[in-house]
Amino acid sequence: MTSIDLNADLGEGFGRWQLTDDERLLSVVTSANVACGFHAGDAATMRRVCELAAARGVRIGAQVSYRDLAGFGRRAMDVPPAELAAEVAYQIGALEVFARAAGTRVSYVKPHGALYNRVVHDEEQAGAVVDGVLLADAALPVLGLPDSRLLEVAAKAGLPAVEEAFADRAYTDQGTLVPRGQDGAVVTDPETVVERSIGLARSGVVTSHSGAEVAVRARSLCLHGDTPGAVELARRVRARLEESGVLVEAFV
Amino acid sequence: MTSIDLNADLGEGFGRWQLTDDERLLSVVTSANVACGFHAGDAATMRRVCELAAARGVRIGAQVSYRDLAGFGRRAMDVPPAELAAEVAYQIGALEVFARAAGTRVSYVKPHGALYNRVVHDEEQAGAVVDGVLLADAALPVLGLPDSRLLEVAAKAGLPAVEEAFADRAYTDQGTLVPRGQDGAVVTDPETVVERSIGLARSGVVTSHSGAEVAVRARSLCLHGDTPGAVELARRVRARLEESGVLVEAFV
Amino acid sequence: MTSIDLNADLGEGFGRWQLTDDERLLSVVTSANVACGFHAGDAATMRRVCELAAARGVRIGAQVSYRDLAGFGRRAMDVPPAELAAEVAYQIGALEVFARAAGTRVSYVKPHGALYNRVVHDEEQAGAVVDGVLLADAALPVLGLPDSRLLEVAAKAGLPAVEEAFADRAYTDQGTLVPRGQDGAVVTDPETVVERSIGLARSGVVTSHSGAEVAVRARSLCLHGDTPGAVELARRVRARLEESGVLVEAFV
Amino acid sequence: MTSIDLNADLGEGFGRWQLTDDERLLSVVTSANVACGFHAGDAATMRRVCELAAARGVRIGAQVSYRDLAGFGRRAMDVPPAELAAEVAYQIGALEVFARAAGTRVSYVKPHGALYNRVVHDEEQAGAVVDGVLLADAALPVLGLPDSRLLEVAAKAGLPAVEEAFADRAYTDQGTLVPRGQDGAVVTDPETVVERSIGLARSGVVTSHSGAEVAVRARSLCLHGDTPGAVELARRVRARLEESGVLVEAFV
Repeated sequence: MTSIDLNADLGEGFGRWQLTDDERLLSVVTSANVACGFHAGDAATMRRVCELAAARGVRIGAQVSYRDLAGFGRRAMDVPPAELAAEVAYQIGALEVFARAAGTRVSYVKPHGALYNRVVHDEEQAGAVVDGVLLADAALPVLGLPDSRLLEVAAKAGLPAVEEAFADRAYTDQGTLVPRGQDGAVVTDPETVVERSIGLARSGVVTSHSGAEVAVRARSLCLHGDTPGAVELARRVRARLEESGVLVEAFV
Repeated sequence: MTSIDLNADLGEGFGRWQLTDDERLLSVVTSANVACGFHAGDAATMRRVCELAAARGVRIGAQVSYRDLAGFGRRAMDVPPAELAAEVAYQIGALEVFARAAGTRVSYVKPHGALYNRVVHDEEQAGAVVDGVLLADAALPVLGLPDSRLLEVAAKAGLPAVEEAFADRAYTDQGTLVPRGQDGAVVTDPETVVERSIGLARSGVVTSHSGAEVAVRARSLCLHGDTPGAVELARRVRARLEESGVLVEAFV
Repeated sequence: MTSIDLNADLGEGFGRWQLTDDERLLSVVTSANVACGFHAGDAATMRRVCELAAARGVRIGAQVSYRDLAGFGRRAMDVPPAELAAEVAYQIGALEVFARAAGTRVSYVKPHGALYNRVVHDEEQAGAVVDGVLLADAALPVLGLPDSRLLEVAAKAGLPAVEEAFADRAYTDQGTLVPRGQDGAVVTDPETVVERSIGLARSGVVTSHSGAEVAVRARSLCLHGDTPGAVELARRVRARLEESGVLVEAFV
Repeated sequence: MTSIDLNADLGEGFGRWQLTDDERLLSVVTSANVACGFHAGDAATMRRVCELAAARGVRIGAQVSYRDLAGFGRRAMDVPPAELAAEVAYQIGALEVFARAAGTRVSYVKPHGALYNRVVHDEEQAGAVVDGVLLADAALPVLGLPDSRLLEVAAKAGLPAVEEAFADRAYTDQGTLVPRGQDGAVVTDPETVVERSIGLARSGVVTSHSGAEVAVRARSLCLHGDTPGAVELARRVRARLEESGVLVEAFV
């Protein structure tokens, strides 16, 4: 039976500010990318999200970021590798305390925002992220884009490298994401998103922006939870995946 | 044979800024209170201090603080207990990652600065610190002042409560510290500090500011490392303790 | 003709996070308490709010706070007076740049959150806030509670001291606010809030929680904008004040 | 008579941490680049440095930076232009309050660290810095490298563009700086630094790393104050410049 993981970003408030609808998202996803305090995520929120996730059997992942609250981790930074590795490990360790207190463990690591985009092509920072993961736990899976430097370096280092896809993003004929900012980069029609999810999960293919069928390997689909209607769409994606015979379960 | 632990604050720089002479202090103390990023202590420094401490067999303690880089954790804050508990656990978890990577563990927790002073008398915040420690590890010793609310609450919660004394601070006849700011609160003569250290370690007594001999229980002496000549004095205290037949060793 | 100022907190997002509905609030209030970056308020938001306020003729006030993004400035802090004064001046200066760029000036200062509450009774911190205002501008009005230490110290220093009242908060028979957390501290019925606003503006009286009529001096009413329905209520308060013959205009 | 300005970075501590020897540097330089809180520089330090500078007639410049305390502003960041412009203006405004309180004004703007290096070639960020300066004051000089995008954009916008040189850095035959990290990038011999200072001030020429005489326009020389012996060297540079008949005075 075909199976797929559904992951989403959670706990992305900070103190007084809320962003993600954590409770509702946790009823949909199988893997929760929990913000660790560097782009979002105060300690009390991290604790609460870990408790909720553990209670529902949702896997907890460390959503590690550049240290940039003001920019929400969306501004690329030239952080020296040794600093970046230590900052990644710091965030994983901080989250691990709440995962353990909730009776579980941090099960994977996924970079956030500008760091996520940077380690697609930047081998030095990809290596630093992997070094940070290794400092924390030499067997922790890393979640990222297929063919990214991050997953290459992680695999070489012996870490499980887990590929993800985006049903609401346009793909090129080469199977890479159409950059945000280009026309049609984001797929907004809900039914199209649902159908692309099913295609990705069942066949590992998606229709590119030019209309070609392209192969995209993915053991996980990333859902978004910070826009109006997003949770509703996530719920629908999950329901339709299950109706079409796909087993929705965590990758680890 | 009488034994005593020597602890000091380490890793209290932040990024470009240095404060404590970590390498030299680690050749003197048996327990290192490592800053965890909230009042000082960037991730790369935490990693380095943990590696150095582990290599020398010095115990690593989490020096937890209010979130206050601008005030170096020296400004009391009315942090709600649930937030404070989570922030304490967060800091312990972040340090634990580097302690483990260095082949050891976080061995105790000691509050820093204004939080240290607050939990002497504030039962609510003392409870929050203990809750934070319990989240991280239900068997982690807590280091603090004798008769403080912190050690009372820690002991009630089943945590080892470890008492410390200050050879360079004046004591009242009741065995409490003369508040900083009062005349003579700090003992500056090196030889006097050495002799008070020996008295505290061997007999558990110290001469109060009025000249009385008062009992002060302590399994650890806190040394200071952030002033000129401090490391030299610490070295001398250790040498003279050993010459007088006191075994200098970690309390845990 | 009786007149009253309406003030509200604005610009209380930070980077990715939004909180206050700035555009709609600016169509209601006559004075905007703009967050200055210490509890909320990134620079781009400050700029935008100043432009919008200036375009509508709404006065710009500096909503100064403790440095505490994680706690949204709601945690009292023992900041030494010299530090606090400098931090207050820093925030006013930062906002002034955007007010001037929008063709106007910072017209008053109002402390936020825990600092607002602290300077009701803490003479030292009240003095520090006033010192900070004087550093920035020796003629800048200060907005606060009647009979607060803040307004006393401000008046003694020659600064215009402007009193404000809260139509949605219960008052004691002595004319002070019933502390939040006590039963009935917040008035939630919209029509009651409207009627209390009219009473405060026209007669300077309000019904206390025991049912007595008490005098409360106020040249400004503080409206809230960060809860559902708040902007609608603010709009209604303004409309009804105007219908009852009260001139709604800035105090300065 | 030939004249030259001497500038240095000041106020680069933060809270408990000290870095620059502000008092001694202020007895040497004619222009003080004061940190504004984003890479260093707490509000109380900014106030004190402005008071000291004003008392000695030293010009006050806003040393604006990326928001990056952990990295001391030395990590390049992809900050969107609108955010960067607002952040630059925010920093200038915050410093202006202390300059005015000390009886003077912010007299120029100089980017710090990674931002300084970025705007040498990045036209978008150079434009954002200039926009930020214009928000604060449409006549404020900008200090930077000759032929940098920053000075080009500043000049086009009508801002005085002031060129500076570094007597302790190696130059290429094209008159650009040899990048740090390359062999010989930094000139360490004190007498050589002194002689290069005199050459730059009197003739606008410097010996390149290949031994050629190259022209380098500079109305200001940047001295360093954060290394051992730096203040002593700065003092010597100034004395020898004056002995050689160069008038040391602020450029504005």
